[in-house]
Amino acid sequence: MKDESYITLPKGFKANGVSAGMKCADRANINPDTPKYKYLDVGMVLSDTPCNVAGVYTKNLVKGHSLVRSMNIIEGGNKVRGIIVNSKNANAAVGKVGIEDADKVASTAAELIGCKNDEILTASTGVIGSRLPLDKLTGAIPELVSGLTTEAEGAHNSEFAMMTTDLVPKEVSAEITLSSGKVVTIAGQAKGSGMIHPNLATMIGIFTTDADIDAKLLKTILLDSVKYTFNRVSVDGDTSVCDMVTVLANGASGVKIEEGSEDCAIFAEALKGLCEDISRMIAADGEGATKFVEIEVYGAKTEKDAYLIASSVAKSPLCKTAFFGMDANCGRILTAAGYSGADFDPEQVDIKLSGLLVYQDGVAAPFDEDEADRLLHEHDIKVEIILKEGDCYDRMFTCDFSYKYVEINGSYRT
Amino acid sequence: MKDESYITLPKGFKANGVSAGMKCADRANINPDTPKYKYLDVGMVLSDTPCNVAGVYTKNLVKGHSLVRSMNIIEGGNKVRGIIVNSKNANAAVGKVGIEDADKVASTAAELIGCKNDEILTASTGVIGSRLPLDKLTGAIPELVSGLTTEAEGAHNSEFAMMTTDLVPKEVSAEITLSSGKVVTIAGQAKGSGMIHPNLATMIGIFTTDADIDAKLLKTILLDSVKYTFNRVSVDGDTSVCDMVTVLANGASGVKIEEGSEDCAIFAEALKGLCEDISRMIAADGEGATKFVEIEVYGAKTEKDAYLIASSVAKSPLCKTAFFGMDANCGRILTAAGYSGADFDPEQVDIKLSGLLVYQDGVAAPFDEDEADRLLHEHDIKVEIILKEGDCYDRMFTCDFSYKYVEINGSYRT
Repeated sequence: MKDESYITLPKGFKANGVSAGMKCADRANINPDTPKYKYLDVGMVLSDTPCNVAGVYTKNLVKGHSLVRSMNIIEGGNKVRGIIVNSKNANAAVGKVGIEDADKVASTAAELIGCKNDEILTASTGVIGSRLPLDKLTGAIPELVSGLTTEAEGAHNSEFAMMTTDLVPKEVSAEITLSSGKVVTIAGQAKGSGMIHPNLATMIGIFTTDADIDAKLLKTILLDSVKYTFNRVSVDGDTSVCDMVTVLANGASGVKIEEGSEDCAIFAEALKGLCEDISRMIAADGEGATKFVEIEVYGAKTEKDAYLIASSVAKSPLCKTAFFGMDANCGRILTAAGYSGADFDPEQVDIKLSGLLVYQDGVAAPFDEDEADRLLHEHDIKVEIILKEGDCYDRMFTCDFSYKYVEINGSYRT
Repeated sequence: MKDESYITLPKGFKANGVSAGMKCADRANINPDTPKYKYLDVGMVLSDTPCNVAGVYTKNLVKGHSLVRSMNIIEGGNKVRGIIVNSKNANAAVGKVGIEDADKVASTAAELIGCKNDEILTASTGVIGSRLPLDKLTGAIPELVSGLTTEAEGAHNSEFAMMTTDLVPKEVSAEITLSSGKVVTIAGQAKGSGMIHPNLATMIGIFTTDADIDAKLLKTILLDSVKYTFNRVSVDGDTSVCDMVTVLANGASGVKIEEGSEDCAIFAEALKGLCEDISRMIAADGEGATKFVEIEVYGAKTEKDAYLIASSVAKSPLCKTAFFGMDANCGRILTAAGYSGADFDPEQVDIKLSGLLVYQDGVAAPFDEDEADRLLHEHDIKVEIILKEGDCYDRMFTCDFSYKYVEINGSYRT
């Protein structure tokens, strides 16, 4: 990951983010004392030339209309030029008009850019069940398109525009030297803070690359990249209806990535690494989070058992409030493993808390309470659950459950 | 349910609850300004004569030692005289010594009573992973046993002694007139406030009856009674390791209940009704709860689909914080249904909030915000999810998710 990362580092990409007046009552009513970036609510990433594209999407049966439109375009095998994302409104559960509204947003931009309507993907995130404020959005698109730039500021603004309850922007990038010595760049940005739990993608993530790579191969690499990264983040166990991770590859580096090549392995490894970096950022910025918690399960009989336990602990409100309270209440971890549905012998489980053995063979181990207290006061906490049943491993990135989570979500809509 | 309900209303049962000094640092240190019942931490219910007994137990792979001991006794087909319950310590995950400790508690009481050790069931609830303070417990048992009484006070004290984070005692009873005109009585008490989610029983519940009923028949009736009652309560999605619901039938009324008889149906209906009453009390007294929420799913294709949706909504932190915030954020209900794993068409779902239609055919319905606000300010909230797929129904009793839940569970152990 580079020191300064932003989505337009790969060649041939521009970005911008502007305010359509959705994050405030009215564009005219912007409070001059609030930093301008807090009002950005519609962002765009655009390639100079058509891109091969791959995507992964929420598994929720209910899907947002902007997302469904993008799925149709990507899975239809089309090339795309870019993506428009708005926050504050999920464009979900509003009926047939939802896809028409997303289409209107895309076509307004496409006309100004001079490309086809279905070369512009759409994504929306925010409140479910209200129509997009089309006048506000289409009114802001001329400023959005005319301001598209390769500069860092435009990229950062496109990230701010996607953010909802996120407190920090999440941007990553890598410059990769291939076996031939040639260089390609990958960059990514994501939003996601609440309503986050695995089922393929669980937030909005956009990656760009100037590598020249076939769409089918890109999809294979993306699926592999998200499996233990984006799909292993849980903030609250709720899988949103608008989630998508997409990669746009415009080939502007002139470097071709061939399936099965050494370069392909290098590229895939780099993309996976960026997905992991950004996934950790999402968990750490979970709504109300004061802790980043990594749950690792070792020695499970099957991959499914390992996943069930990691997921169960990551979702348990009792474990998560104990992390918040910095209370070494490790019986709750054993309990969450026990009801996870995984098959294991509870009488041979070891549990470590940031390296400290707290359960041995299913029995509470005597541990130094001061040492546990010190470890729990760190920002990063690691839980290792060792089953001694087989060779399977899984992990989950999560955060604690605080008063702030309740405050944020008790009054999100209003 | 009678006006005043307590566990010794059926003939031939006595009860008591005393302080073993587990709810305070030391028995000598009791704060005189705190009501005495807050220090009660070991309780007993005893029948004058041996009882037929049935039980249902947590499905958690990890099981507390006091519970395992009771399971072995009940499933071994034994008759029992009574049960001792302690709070503050779960007697779980401490290794082989856990069963020996529970045995010691039971045998201390059995010796004073003059019955066999394995005629006394044991149950423990509280912190996991610490040994029972045997000296404190066995030291308190003489007072516990000598104070056993048929009076209401002893029964109430036995209920207080089981309570952990519960704010209100949960006691029910019914006097049932059978087809012959003969009368039997059933009474019950329960504890349960956090770490509550269905998987058979999810808290400690004790029922007594003076009916003369075969143990196998009692088990059948109990299993049927808990299915849509105790097994439909979720406070936080965590299934505890110490849960048990048990019924003790001592036959002291001299009234025999025969399998398949009309009286059997009347008895079963009464027990189920009491289980429902006490289950609603448990949800309403969920840790930090400010609301009682009933989730009902109609028209599902299969029973499993109905259950998955009810359970998913009842567990969703986003739905539960919205109930706390009294925010009609009904998109979250649709979202939780969508990721539940149930099979349904999201485009034909209706959702009602305390009778108010908020989603019709999967689309947000325009509703009166003032009316929604008024309904959400009620203590009892009902959510109806109508799928129009088939005839299957399920329901769940739950509560909201508040700051108080985080406070209680951030510092439970300490």
